[in-house]
Amino acid sequence: MTRSVFYVSDGTGITAETLGHTLLTQFEQIHFNTVSLPFINSKEKMDWAVQRINRAAQSDGEPPLVFSTLVDTRRREELERCRGLIFDFLDAFTPRLEEVLGVTAQHVAGRSHGMGNMRTYAERMDALHFAIQNDDGATTRDYPNADVVVMGVSRTGKTPTCMYLALNYGIRAANYPLADDDFDRGTLPASLEPYRKKLFGLTVDGERLHQIRTERRPNSHYASVEQCNKELRAVERMLKREGIPCLNITQMSVEEIAAQLMQQAALMRRI
Amino acid sequence: MTRSVFYVSDGTGITAETLGHTLLTQFEQIHFNTVSLPFINSKEKMDWAVQRINRAAQSDGEPPLVFSTLVDTRRREELERCRGLIFDFLDAFTPRLEEVLGVTAQHVAGRSHGMGNMRTYAERMDALHFAIQNDDGATTRDYPNADVVVMGVSRTGKTPTCMYLALNYGIRAANYPLADDDFDRGTLPASLEPYRKKLFGLTVDGERLHQIRTERRPNSHYASVEQCNKELRAVERMLKREGIPCLNITQMSVEEIAAQLMQQAALMRRI
Repeated sequence: MTRSVFYVSDGTGITAETLGHTLLTQFEQIHFNTVSLPFINSKEKMDWAVQRINRAAQSDGEPPLVFSTLVDTRRREELERCRGLIFDFLDAFTPRLEEVLGVTAQHVAGRSHGMGNMRTYAERMDALHFAIQNDDGATTRDYPNADVVVMGVSRTGKTPTCMYLALNYGIRAANYPLADDDFDRGTLPASLEPYRKKLFGLTVDGERLHQIRTERRPNSHYASVEQCNKELRAVERMLKREGIPCLNITQMSVEEIAAQLMQQAALMRRI
Repeated sequence: MTRSVFYVSDGTGITAETLGHTLLTQFEQIHFNTVSLPFINSKEKMDWAVQRINRAAQSDGEPPLVFSTLVDTRRREELERCRGLIFDFLDAFTPRLEEVLGVTAQHVAGRSHGMGNMRTYAERMDALHFAIQNDDGATTRDYPNADVVVMGVSRTGKTPTCMYLALNYGIRAANYPLADDDFDRGTLPASLEPYRKKLFGLTVDGERLHQIRTERRPNSHYASVEQCNKELRAVERMLKREGIPCLNITQMSVEEIAAQLMQQAALMRRI
């Protein structure tokens, strides 16, 4: 069974997509055909959006689901003419919030993912710049400014985690890849000693690492189950001995790794 | 006026934060003190969460706002004992969705930002790897595999946009920085000619570019209003003459740039 789904927003559509996605993942029996309609901020654009929804209603033979985060009251009234079933996120919560807070909502579009202030913008850019500059462990020069140093063997998700932390939390995360020398020695690399309190390890099950590495370099020594297990055992022993917090990411998305790391390393978001 | 706000989730908390943030930005008169409580997936953790909420209730002298995306029915019942005002996201929409879809919601936590399938994971990693490898315009070797090539002068948000597109949409975006040679020549760099249809320009107002560059290199020629305007005028002339779509990012967040670019370049998300 397939249903058409539309995300309609007068902003980026990110809120509508996030909320709709969360609701729809609870109905895995059904296949959803989703379309995002962001920046619907004029009558002309809404007319076009309504036409698209109505065409889907006609070809499906049943009404599409329409998840909306429209802030502008006029746009919301215009959307109501469509032949879809509207789930209006702001309408569902705003009246009670107004009551509880004792003030009126401001109904200004584009605020939730808008530019924000200059400080937030700069924090985020600096954090991302930091992550890119410190993605290979070549130097620890910038580590005094790091919020966290993420350690692990190749392909344990360190790079995406660091980039995600920068973009979404404004956190300055350095990626420190562990390599042969580290496995053999079994103690913390000397250059990391001064930053002991910032260290955080990522690890993964051997079978899964083998699978990920095989996608990149099939049939290589690097991707073999033996090599993966050898590296992982050495690193896990070292992290344990040194008392460095560690997360097994086998079943995790980048979002989950980042959220877990924020919590376990007790980091505060900067944006 | 300050109010305490808690985001309570049995997953990453990303949905709860997104929902709460969108709602609260409509009440800018009030200062919100927000706390995220992710991964509340046991009775023990919920007892701890309820205690935190109740302590805030006591010290504030008024009930905190609690935005919840709890999927597990037991956790939701346990949360109800707290002294906060609960805004339950799933409860607000799930019953009507069940009715419309004619099936029962599955109530499995951690699905919306969970790992997803192997293909999605690989697409995202590949896209991020692509963005990092192609962040400086040094080579166009990978451009046949690019979804989009983002052009612009230094500090117009190309890097964060490319990283965001990779992480959030699985899009392979290359960053092509325009420099002195390009300003003087006024035509498309020869190496980009074969990728004409993938090109997308970012530009910004001169005053804003001056402000951003000044943060990085105060009082430099690079940051001067004259230099900023000179570069921007040359690039805008070139983009216009070559018919390359272009976005002025002066008032935009990274989210907005990415969402606008997806729409204007007619890109389809890969994840």
